[in-house]
Amino acid sequence: MSNTKRLESDSIGTLEIPKEAYYGVQSLRAKENFHITGRRMNPLMIVSLAEIKKAAAIANEEAGLLDEKIAKAMIQACDEIIEGKLHEEFIIDPIQGGAGTSANMNANEVVANRAIEILGGEKGDYSIVHPNDHVNMAQSTNDVYPTAGKLTVLKLIPRLLDELHRLSDALHEKAEEFDDVIKMGRTQLQDAVPIRLGQSFQCYSLAIARDIKRIDKVLNELRAINMGGTAIGTALNACPEYLETIVGRLKEVTGIEIVHAGNLIDSTQNLDGLVNISGTMKVCAVNLSKMGNDLRLLSSGPRTGFNEINLPAKQNGSSIMPGKVNPVIPEVVSQVAFNVIGNDMTITMAAEAGQMELNAFEPVIFYNMFEQIITLTGAVRTFTDNCIKGITANRERCKALVEGSVGIITAICPYIGYKKAADIAKTSLKTNEPVRDLILKEKLLTEEQLNKLLDPYAMTNPGGSVIDMISTAK
Amino acid sequence: MSNTKRLESDSIGTLEIPKEAYYGVQSLRAKENFHITGRRMNPLMIVSLAEIKKAAAIANEEAGLLDEKIAKAMIQACDEIIEGKLHEEFIIDPIQGGAGTSANMNANEVVANRAIEILGGEKGDYSIVHPNDHVNMAQSTNDVYPTAGKLTVLKLIPRLLDELHRLSDALHEKAEEFDDVIKMGRTQLQDAVPIRLGQSFQCYSLAIARDIKRIDKVLNELRAINMGGTAIGTALNACPEYLETIVGRLKEVTGIEIVHAGNLIDSTQNLDGLVNISGTMKVCAVNLSKMGNDLRLLSSGPRTGFNEINLPAKQNGSSIMPGKVNPVIPEVVSQVAFNVIGNDMTITMAAEAGQMELNAFEPVIFYNMFEQIITLTGAVRTFTDNCIKGITANRERCKALVEGSVGIITAICPYIGYKKAADIAKTSLKTNEPVRDLILKEKLLTEEQLNKLLDPYAMTNPGGSVIDMISTAK
Amino acid sequence: MSNTKRLESDSIGTLEIPKEAYYGVQSLRAKENFHITGRRMNPLMIVSLAEIKKAAAIANEEAGLLDEKIAKAMIQACDEIIEGKLHEEFIIDPIQGGAGTSANMNANEVVANRAIEILGGEKGDYSIVHPNDHVNMAQSTNDVYPTAGKLTVLKLIPRLLDELHRLSDALHEKAEEFDDVIKMGRTQLQDAVPIRLGQSFQCYSLAIARDIKRIDKVLNELRAINMGGTAIGTALNACPEYLETIVGRLKEVTGIEIVHAGNLIDSTQNLDGLVNISGTMKVCAVNLSKMGNDLRLLSSGPRTGFNEINLPAKQNGSSIMPGKVNPVIPEVVSQVAFNVIGNDMTITMAAEAGQMELNAFEPVIFYNMFEQIITLTGAVRTFTDNCIKGITANRERCKALVEGSVGIITAICPYIGYKKAADIAKTSLKTNEPVRDLILKEKLLTEEQLNKLLDPYAMTNPGGSVIDMISTAK
Amino acid sequence: MSNTKRLESDSIGTLEIPKEAYYGVQSLRAKENFHITGRRMNPLMIVSLAEIKKAAAIANEEAGLLDEKIAKAMIQACDEIIEGKLHEEFIIDPIQGGAGTSANMNANEVVANRAIEILGGEKGDYSIVHPNDHVNMAQSTNDVYPTAGKLTVLKLIPRLLDELHRLSDALHEKAEEFDDVIKMGRTQLQDAVPIRLGQSFQCYSLAIARDIKRIDKVLNELRAINMGGTAIGTALNACPEYLETIVGRLKEVTGIEIVHAGNLIDSTQNLDGLVNISGTMKVCAVNLSKMGNDLRLLSSGPRTGFNEINLPAKQNGSSIMPGKVNPVIPEVVSQVAFNVIGNDMTITMAAEAGQMELNAFEPVIFYNMFEQIITLTGAVRTFTDNCIKGITANRERCKALVEGSVGIITAICPYIGYKKAADIAKTSLKTNEPVRDLILKEKLLTEEQLNKLLDPYAMTNPGGSVIDMISTAK
Repeated sequence: MSNTKRLESDSIGTLEIPKEAYYGVQSLRAKENFHITGRRMNPLMIVSLAEIKKAAAIANEEAGLLDEKIAKAMIQACDEIIEGKLHEEFIIDPIQGGAGTSANMNANEVVANRAIEILGGEKGDYSIVHPNDHVNMAQSTNDVYPTAGKLTVLKLIPRLLDELHRLSDALHEKAEEFDDVIKMGRTQLQDAVPIRLGQSFQCYSLAIARDIKRIDKVLNELRAINMGGTAIGTALNACPEYLETIVGRLKEVTGIEIVHAGNLIDSTQNLDGLVNISGTMKVCAVNLSKMGNDLRLLSSGPRTGFNEINLPAKQNGSSIMPGKVNPVIPEVVSQVAFNVIGNDMTITMAAEAGQMELNAFEPVIFYNMFEQIITLTGAVRTFTDNCIKGITANRERCKALVEGSVGIITAICPYIGYKKAADIAKTSLKTNEPVRDLILKEKLLTEEQLNKLLDPYAMTNPGGSVIDMISTAK
Repeated sequence: MSNTKRLESDSIGTLEIPKEAYYGVQSLRAKENFHITGRRMNPLMIVSLAEIKKAAAIANEEAGLLDEKIAKAMIQACDEIIEGKLHEEFIIDPIQGGAGTSANMNANEVVANRAIEILGGEKGDYSIVHPNDHVNMAQSTNDVYPTAGKLTVLKLIPRLLDELHRLSDALHEKAEEFDDVIKMGRTQLQDAVPIRLGQSFQCYSLAIARDIKRIDKVLNELRAINMGGTAIGTALNACPEYLETIVGRLKEVTGIEIVHAGNLIDSTQNLDGLVNISGTMKVCAVNLSKMGNDLRLLSSGPRTGFNEINLPAKQNGSSIMPGKVNPVIPEVVSQVAFNVIGNDMTITMAAEAGQMELNAFEPVIFYNMFEQIITLTGAVRTFTDNCIKGITANRERCKALVEGSVGIITAICPYIGYKKAADIAKTSLKTNEPVRDLILKEKLLTEEQLNKLLDPYAMTNPGGSVIDMISTAK
Repeated sequence: MSNTKRLESDSIGTLEIPKEAYYGVQSLRAKENFHITGRRMNPLMIVSLAEIKKAAAIANEEAGLLDEKIAKAMIQACDEIIEGKLHEEFIIDPIQGGAGTSANMNANEVVANRAIEILGGEKGDYSIVHPNDHVNMAQSTNDVYPTAGKLTVLKLIPRLLDELHRLSDALHEKAEEFDDVIKMGRTQLQDAVPIRLGQSFQCYSLAIARDIKRIDKVLNELRAINMGGTAIGTALNACPEYLETIVGRLKEVTGIEIVHAGNLIDSTQNLDGLVNISGTMKVCAVNLSKMGNDLRLLSSGPRTGFNEINLPAKQNGSSIMPGKVNPVIPEVVSQVAFNVIGNDMTITMAAEAGQMELNAFEPVIFYNMFEQIITLTGAVRTFTDNCIKGITANRERCKALVEGSVGIITAICPYIGYKKAADIAKTSLKTNEPVRDLILKEKLLTEEQLNKLLDPYAMTNPGGSVIDMISTAK
Repeated sequence: MSNTKRLESDSIGTLEIPKEAYYGVQSLRAKENFHITGRRMNPLMIVSLAEIKKAAAIANEEAGLLDEKIAKAMIQACDEIIEGKLHEEFIIDPIQGGAGTSANMNANEVVANRAIEILGGEKGDYSIVHPNDHVNMAQSTNDVYPTAGKLTVLKLIPRLLDELHRLSDALHEKAEEFDDVIKMGRTQLQDAVPIRLGQSFQCYSLAIARDIKRIDKVLNELRAINMGGTAIGTALNACPEYLETIVGRLKEVTGIEIVHAGNLIDSTQNLDGLVNISGTMKVCAVNLSKMGNDLRLLSSGPRTGFNEINLPAKQNGSSIMPGKVNPVIPEVVSQVAFNVIGNDMTITMAAEAGQMELNAFEPVIFYNMFEQIITLTGAVRTFTDNCIKGITANRERCKALVEGSVGIITAICPYIGYKKAADIAKTSLKTNEPVRDLILKEKLLTEEQLNKLLDPYAMTNPGGSVIDMISTAK
């Protein structure tokens, strides 16, 4: 062995570790066992693990189970990781076998070795601070890892919620800006009846507002954590003092609102709360993609499409077609939506596959959940800033389309009957004679009546101009 | 044309209809356009449509827009359908193009023709009662169909909730019955530490209780209906009086708690609420399947498996292997879970595909959602009655497995350290010498200490026997 | 017990059976255990089960294991079921626990009781013909059920392939009909460069042709069946003579090309072949839905959309908007596509959940696979007949859109450079001056050159008019 | 502007670029528009883009359209990228709007600026080499990007196939090693009839062999590329010489077997081939996960589970339970399988969402497809090396379980009838008297007959010992 290495051993055998490494034998085995994504754990997840280790050190020391000096060194080591140091020592792949044991042991080893160093020892001399006996005291992967995952989600979600709020607000502003833009509504992509562009944006704003509310609600499911449950939730090897204080200490360390799960065994084995969060991300993705699809339709053209709105040009659209500007932001939003829905599928299958006292597939669940939230956050941010805020309306075009449309016949229908109205619509479509002219020609209604009935603004108002007409027309 | 037929025409042309048929030309066209599943609409959906037609007739009559005589005949026709009559006249496939127009028109035609008959006319003489002008007055498929779908869901879900309550209760009873059955817990299918069988069942009960709570909550999203919105939610052709009363009338007719959607345009085009319900069904499916998988594992054997519990024998398990009894009920539960998850995927895709002022894919959404709820209801019912309630524990087997296990070493770990404990575990597994003997042989703890530490019941109690040991062992 | 009942018993106990019923105690238990979908098995599946029972009777009799008289009666019973009789005696739900044991036992009991009757006995007197010992001789659910499922798929798929062939042909005919219709191509819904409508339809035709080829190929995976494998594929209780002849006999009975699986154990436990078929259905669904979406876009309008083609009007589009005709057929096609993709998800999860020597979740797999094929077949049929065949092109509109478009600037780009071209495009979009005029005004190209370069037909031909220009323009 | 920046402009406006950057304005806009995953493009994808740019430069130069000096500089720039240089200049997120335009423009700009540098110019001076006019000559994102994606898949898949071959071989070796290990087969987790452990492994080996065959086949779909199709497949702006040579040149540059797509328009807009590849990955994932699940079951215990095999211990299983060794490798395999299935869902949705002449969602498709292949490759490699190869059988345990089992009664069933056999099974299970003893006690068969019938090895052989018994027993 070169003198740049140290030897470490575990139940499996002995391994050479780079002398300067803070990780140890168990991390290295895990790294070699799992070359899967080629990626590393999310930095916030690393921080969450360190926060848990710190809180546990505090709680164990308070319970009289941990020597003060050791505790202090461990806490300092944790603080460094929380500040962003030593992250490169977390060497394992986020998708890993073993329910997160490798991630937990990686944290245990890094904290132990840094604490050893602080205490003046040599890295690897676990007689000073032991990864399992000290750093992992009263803990198990099975409470540490899901708690770290949940803490990470609780850190990521507020960023998403902020972006969703900004999006909903931006949409609402557009709703006001476009409140007087009358345009044709379309159902099944066919001309229907008039609507105001502002009404459309108001709907989008409302849908996002619902998403915010939903996410807010289900988030509470995540706040219940199973620290202290240890291996299977029975709290074996966690002393009562620790059990009582660990969640409070963790709350202090993280500043995140968490509570002790009502039943630690249940909380250790059932991941329905995570599936629920993921499902809520999926609902949000559906709303975003639908909205993006609409915006792409409304801005289609400029010459051969709907062309009712303009998306802000954010980059050249084509490497070959000069002047082409594409709806790249809604496109990335839809792609993220599809990705989030795929993530949800993975999370669902992994949750369903849990067996008995544990779900061993938590790593792939959190890997996908982090991706859900991060990609949604990024997509919503660019959606707001690079798309929604810059949308303008083609008022003239909107108006012309309403005026040329046959769909306004609907407003006349109650006065002349469905069958007659259908005949006129058919004629108008064939001959291109405006609906209004045909009705006048057939003397079905007077000009005055028509003016009222065919006022497009009124048509967009629930029970608008129709009101007076009822008595008139009858 | 034979004299068993009548002629009906619409914008497309003229068609022969069986003289006795209550459906008309539009239903027949739809039937011929859509041979998809070979199935018919759910009877509750047919009733929901009739309830809406009835409420609309009342509201329109009250608004002075509908002749009393006609209204009365239409209401009688609706009542007959609500009572279960004329259902065979609903001839269209549940998966249909056109956002449910065919379903709505089928209802319009059946109600019209039955009303015509009541008024002494000949079926097909729409001058007496017109499917569009009278039956569909102030309505559009785009408010009628989703409202009917939601009403149907609101009728189906309480049955599911009832069954989930019964399941949760049955599980809780078993939790009490098995509270004293100590067995080995397993994580990752490997021997972990002791747990009580009752604790396992308590977790299942709690998970189902969460499902109930979740479904209850999201159900409220469904209560907001868009009646009066007509074509695109702008309420075109619905007069203010009708708009004000229709939801109240529908509430009276159905006895179901519903409210008017806050924004009818939003409610007409965005189906996130349905995706949310479906997602909640999926979470429930995950919990059920996980539980079913556990029960199949626990009852595996009888000779070559875990064999810790017995599922009640509900049918011969095999056509070739005599005496074999299979876990058929958990198996069907998992199959339903997989089906529900597939349904959710379809619903998600269909919701995402909505465009502009309408989602044209509602028929496949409701088709799948009804299947979700109905199959879950059936699965949960048989799960409770034919499986959970009859489960018995193999107490002796459970006890023997705990006693032979090495996993109990975990309880000793805080007193002798992880490394030493791992060595003993390894030796015990190799030599088959009990952990207890090895510890005594090495004089690591006294017999008295071991008695306390290795008391399996205590191990299943948060902070159990451990308590006193701390001071002792230190 | 009333005298309309008979008593039957099995390992579980005794049950009353309607005296006239051909099904027996095991069917009745299954019926009561599984109220899931409320549906019955597919009739073709019932026929497939009867065909297997018949082939087995022949093979067992030839092997000298079955009395000729009994065999003859059983074969007659099977033939009656194959002809469509007694199907109402198959009383079980298609989604059932137990890997299909209930379906197999239902077949065993119906065949046995009908054979008993033929032999002059009383239904239920299994001393004459026994459901397990005679009808199920040398068989197990675990070879019978998946074989029946595969046979059913092999019967259903040719119908789908026929419809796909008709669709591909119809699309090809349209490709020829529309070969001279020049229109704007769109990428990302933005104006791109010209294309001929016929080229678009040719692409659709080719995509469907690929689907046909794919389905044809993977179908061969289904032809390998595991009859004779009995319980787990080791052929326990199947004598060599039977093993040798059963597949040949089944081939004769069904007229379907099947072969013996190379490894019966593998074939009994691994369902990857079914997942593969389902995946191929999914690919086909994607192609169909994409095409349907395109057709809905192309026919959007008539006044406010693309309006380049007309779909045939197949039914009134709206119950409230007179004259509206909707793209109902493409809509149902997309809905079926979403459903097929959901089915695939269920099939995937069920296949993944197989354990050890058997996959117990075959019932839900076949339930979904039959739905995939049946709904696809219906959707493709109506797509061809009620949509594709009647499509017409709006030639003038297509032409006008090309002429007004800015995208044709692309053809000029190689001669004036990307940057200059982009400037002209921008100006044209702003001022509405045609691209051609701007280029002439700036004297970038001569009129003659422009005539060649901007010939839209040439633009749609790989390397069209461009050819000569290269030397000219250089 | 500091002197560390240069200015670049495009249709949107002007932007500051770091002076030393090889990327340009369009890359920077894209980077700022798309902060989605926080990741970079796969290095192999970057290489594929460079290979295409090189082949295009060669083909364009040969066609006489590109100045030799410029071509040479561009080719040198591409070669450097192919060798792994300048990868850090590819700054955009793999999930991006715009059908890959950003990725293509990033490549165009890096190649252009490096070529400018080679030619002695200043980066950003596109009068020397222009990203669009020179580097992108005769190309469009719409042929470049999907071609690059396919090339990357064609590079990644062989690695996966190598690993699958190694896995299949390792499984086959285990099949031979365990050919004499008789154990109980299990169906539905219940004791069935004997099987040899080698037979189980042979099935796994065969399933993987089928996956290899399937992947091999569908891979050919990927070999058809649409280079030369440019914007929408009509080859606008690609001269005939280039069209004829580009694929050949690309084949030479990459060494990968590719062909020109039969129809470039079809190939540009339809992504069914990609969905098919992804579906095949999904089938493979299902086989792997099922196998992994089986191995976890077979190795469950060691004391409270099946314990028929031992997986090699690859790392400490638990941070709290000493001596616990977990099936971490099969666990990671299942997690990857779930992830691959989620990827497939995303790919399916993105492919379905294609519109008209292009699918704008290719970036998310390739992002997921690369992840599918890379994670599968890693999972299969560790599965083979760290799990399969080290599996050992617990022969004694397997034997004991067979001997104690009741399932062997099945072999007796043909001689004593299903009903009698079921009675004996029931008695044996209740009283624990061996099946053999009960049969002898009841004098149903002689000891000699039983010896033959109950020979477990014979039971695992199709038509084994049964043969002679038929005549004997009858």
